[in-house]
Amino acid sequence: MNGAESLLTTLINNGIDVCFTNPGTSEMHFVAALDEVEGMRCVLCLFEGVLSGAADGYARMARRPASTLLHLGPGLGNALANVHNAKKGNVPMVNIVGDHATYHVKYNAPLTSDIDSIARPISHWVHSSEKSEDIARDTAQAVLQAGHNKVATLMLPADVSWGDNPGGAEEAVTLPPLAAVPQSRIDDVVAKLKAGKKCLFMIGGVEVDHRRGHALSRIGKASGARVSTDVFPPRVARGEGSAAIERLPYLAELAVDHIKEVEELFLLGALAPVSFFAYPNQPSEIYSPECRVTELASVDEDIDGLLDALLEQLGAADEEPDVHALNLPDLASGDLDVDGAARAITHFMPENAVIVDESNTSGTFISLYTTNARSHDLLNLTGGAIGYGLPAAVGAAVACPDRKVLSLEADGSAMYTLQALWSMARENLDITVVIFNNRKYSILELEFSRTGARGGTPGPKAASTLQIGNPDLDFVALAQGMGVPATRATTAEQFNEQFEQAMKGKGPCLIDAIVPTVF
Amino acid sequence: MNGAESLLTTLINNGIDVCFTNPGTSEMHFVAALDEVEGMRCVLCLFEGVLSGAADGYARMARRPASTLLHLGPGLGNALANVHNAKKGNVPMVNIVGDHATYHVKYNAPLTSDIDSIARPISHWVHSSEKSEDIARDTAQAVLQAGHNKVATLMLPADVSWGDNPGGAEEAVTLPPLAAVPQSRIDDVVAKLKAGKKCLFMIGGVEVDHRRGHALSRIGKASGARVSTDVFPPRVARGEGSAAIERLPYLAELAVDHIKEVEELFLLGALAPVSFFAYPNQPSEIYSPECRVTELASVDEDIDGLLDALLEQLGAADEEPDVHALNLPDLASGDLDVDGAARAITHFMPENAVIVDESNTSGTFISLYTTNARSHDLLNLTGGAIGYGLPAAVGAAVACPDRKVLSLEADGSAMYTLQALWSMARENLDITVVIFNNRKYSILELEFSRTGARGGTPGPKAASTLQIGNPDLDFVALAQGMGVPATRATTAEQFNEQFEQAMKGKGPCLIDAIVPTVF
Repeated sequence: MNGAESLLTTLINNGIDVCFTNPGTSEMHFVAALDEVEGMRCVLCLFEGVLSGAADGYARMARRPASTLLHLGPGLGNALANVHNAKKGNVPMVNIVGDHATYHVKYNAPLTSDIDSIARPISHWVHSSEKSEDIARDTAQAVLQAGHNKVATLMLPADVSWGDNPGGAEEAVTLPPLAAVPQSRIDDVVAKLKAGKKCLFMIGGVEVDHRRGHALSRIGKASGARVSTDVFPPRVARGEGSAAIERLPYLAELAVDHIKEVEELFLLGALAPVSFFAYPNQPSEIYSPECRVTELASVDEDIDGLLDALLEQLGAADEEPDVHALNLPDLASGDLDVDGAARAITHFMPENAVIVDESNTSGTFISLYTTNARSHDLLNLTGGAIGYGLPAAVGAAVACPDRKVLSLEADGSAMYTLQALWSMARENLDITVVIFNNRKYSILELEFSRTGARGGTPGPKAASTLQIGNPDLDFVALAQGMGVPATRATTAEQFNEQFEQAMKGKGPCLIDAIVPTVF
Repeated sequence: MNGAESLLTTLINNGIDVCFTNPGTSEMHFVAALDEVEGMRCVLCLFEGVLSGAADGYARMARRPASTLLHLGPGLGNALANVHNAKKGNVPMVNIVGDHATYHVKYNAPLTSDIDSIARPISHWVHSSEKSEDIARDTAQAVLQAGHNKVATLMLPADVSWGDNPGGAEEAVTLPPLAAVPQSRIDDVVAKLKAGKKCLFMIGGVEVDHRRGHALSRIGKASGARVSTDVFPPRVARGEGSAAIERLPYLAELAVDHIKEVEELFLLGALAPVSFFAYPNQPSEIYSPECRVTELASVDEDIDGLLDALLEQLGAADEEPDVHALNLPDLASGDLDVDGAARAITHFMPENAVIVDESNTSGTFISLYTTNARSHDLLNLTGGAIGYGLPAAVGAAVACPDRKVLSLEADGSAMYTLQALWSMARENLDITVVIFNNRKYSILELEFSRTGARGGTPGPKAASTLQIGNPDLDFVALAQGMGVPATRATTAEQFNEQFEQAMKGKGPCLIDAIVPTVF
């Protein structure tokens, strides 16, 4: 087999059987290999930012990595923002970046660039295969990295792809277990809890599933400690039956207030909480100067083992976790606003839905309702790079064809990677997109005021860069242009009806929800 | 004034008075400064790949750089492909990349990344300002770089932006002149010409305006040498009155044949010609192994001075240059194909139009007609990263509001940066977009065959990744969704009528031209 075939076979042998792709000339032998090697599902995307976001959404829902196929440095650049998001969320991914043939690089053809330099900031592991004989081994290394929730980026020169590899593919790699959290750290925490310190456990950077959420709730009840997620865990079990634990607010002003009393902060996967951005005369750190921060478990350590140990040592295993009850709101009427949309979404969304949330300011209050919705999973924007939501919905729906995927999306963010709609239509994915169309970069209006620039009030030029009306974006036309059925809602009644129909149906659709801004 | 104001003022003092922008929180003080400092035109784009391509198209037509405003590493990543194209085409650009406040970086907030590593491969010059007092000086350095057709990327930390800069702005910088080509090189060339060697002058990497084209034609006639452009000069004067000089073909197979007799290749700005991609058992170099390649002038040397010296030494100044005559083709009828569209485009396009060509396979034969069109400028894709055309048209139209801009665009390429249409509508730019909609990545079908993968014939899975029908893209709906009036043409008569109307009108419009593939 050639290099590309041994690469593909190695991926498939390791359960990586989906490839989100946008190939170019240097990847044609990889593309050819798709028909020579059985078992790789290939999902074409019209832009690389779509495919990297899709690989992220897939991995969060499938709990195993997808692969991507990218065309040289510019292809990786186009994918960069959503690979960044994946890295920040510890979401596994195996990126295959086609490169010029090894002997061709020195000629500096137009598409030549330093791919390694572009890849490093967004990857935990970067490697370029030098020979066809190496590619299976290198792929196995990439798989090993991704197995522990890392972003692995493997450059595949064209001649390595087309050259013969008599050694063939690698079999499934064996993942070493996650490192156990040292007992001394656990003892230290238990001692602090027993000493009556005001403690907060904060989990983040990993999925917060029912098991982890419930364990934290039990630990909190048994120990008197507060328990919380960080602002944007990559995936959280929410709705009916999910653990009633806190969530750190996004806005630093609120977050500081929220945890100002905490004396001991124990981090599970989460990083020490800091402001998303710096503001003049505001501290970067969210926790109080007196608070002691302990990394109880990193994302590379066994958080589940740690939780089990804490449950046992704190006698918390028999505690009944606090969970959220089902509480479906009444439907709204009259002019549509975000509150009305949130009511309908919560009212109609089915059991086991997946919400991909990139609704930004419009989403601020949706989660208050969905806390008591039917049981569902929520995917968050982990790296702050917008253009994540629609692509991630593609990936989530590929991973979970039997679950309804809701893509709650801000108008501004949607326009970064709108090409995702085409892949939704092409793959007939069961995704309902709701665009909260307020015709502004509303988050930036808020942020302008928070930075205090120009006294917090934009002048006319600044204001015009924060508003994306003139012309108004018509998301019905845009969706239809990519083969996705779409409707517009300007009243709550219209939204209620359209969203209910979407929940009853199968396949992609979009609702262009015309709403006022929240702030 | 604060750092942002001194930066903006320094740019404006140096004639950089257009900023293509997509800001985020860390850029809010820059945005605020737009209302404090007079003279910066700010063009909002909905995606960073649009704004970097627009900055490129602007600079090629204005013959001076634009600035860009980008939001941290992911914003630069989104812009990367078109900054790559600019760098490869030696198109000047001043990128301002907002970064976290200097003291905030260490906290590793979600949007933190190694911007420097992302910027280096696509920039000639990269710098991060450390203090508000430094920003004017650093901006002047960036301007100096851009003044000699370099891509300069300046990171602007938020606190450098908002901090006080008592030193204020820098005045206009003085550009050192381009280095003269040493007389010895010129003498060497003249000697080779006189010795009867088969010589070819090839210009590229710089604009080929009438003056340069005519000079080359004269030199060719006086010396017997062949004269040519490389495949994709960034800007070329074409049509009636333009120099009748050769152009190196894109396809390596044709290009090798085209210059196989050449014994002495003299490069003016151009790089030694090589195949765009490597193919199994094909040489990378286009020129024959016996051909000697001389870099007669680099892009950093005085090419116009060199041409003057050659004209004089070869006694060519009085030669009449060979120029193209006006020859407008008849209009086609019946089912629309690329030939019919090319006839109508050539027939109706006005004097002094600007063509931005990213029509890929569909464009292969258009240039045969437009060679004899009314006088116009052509902008080419210099770095091979698609998604260039629509954004560059935005920039060209901003630079030249009195010239008709034609954006000839392949369907596949259009989808990378389609958000450019919104900026066309918002700024009411006089751009006519023609989408050659063949529902395929036709270039990749061709390239699949050229690579010889799987015997040159894609299997079903490979074939599906090369076709972008199912669902068909409706560019009329997509354009209307972003406020651009659009029509569809399936017959030559429809296209003729629609294109004629577009040439008579002002403002943006799009024609979705449904055509069969060329190959």
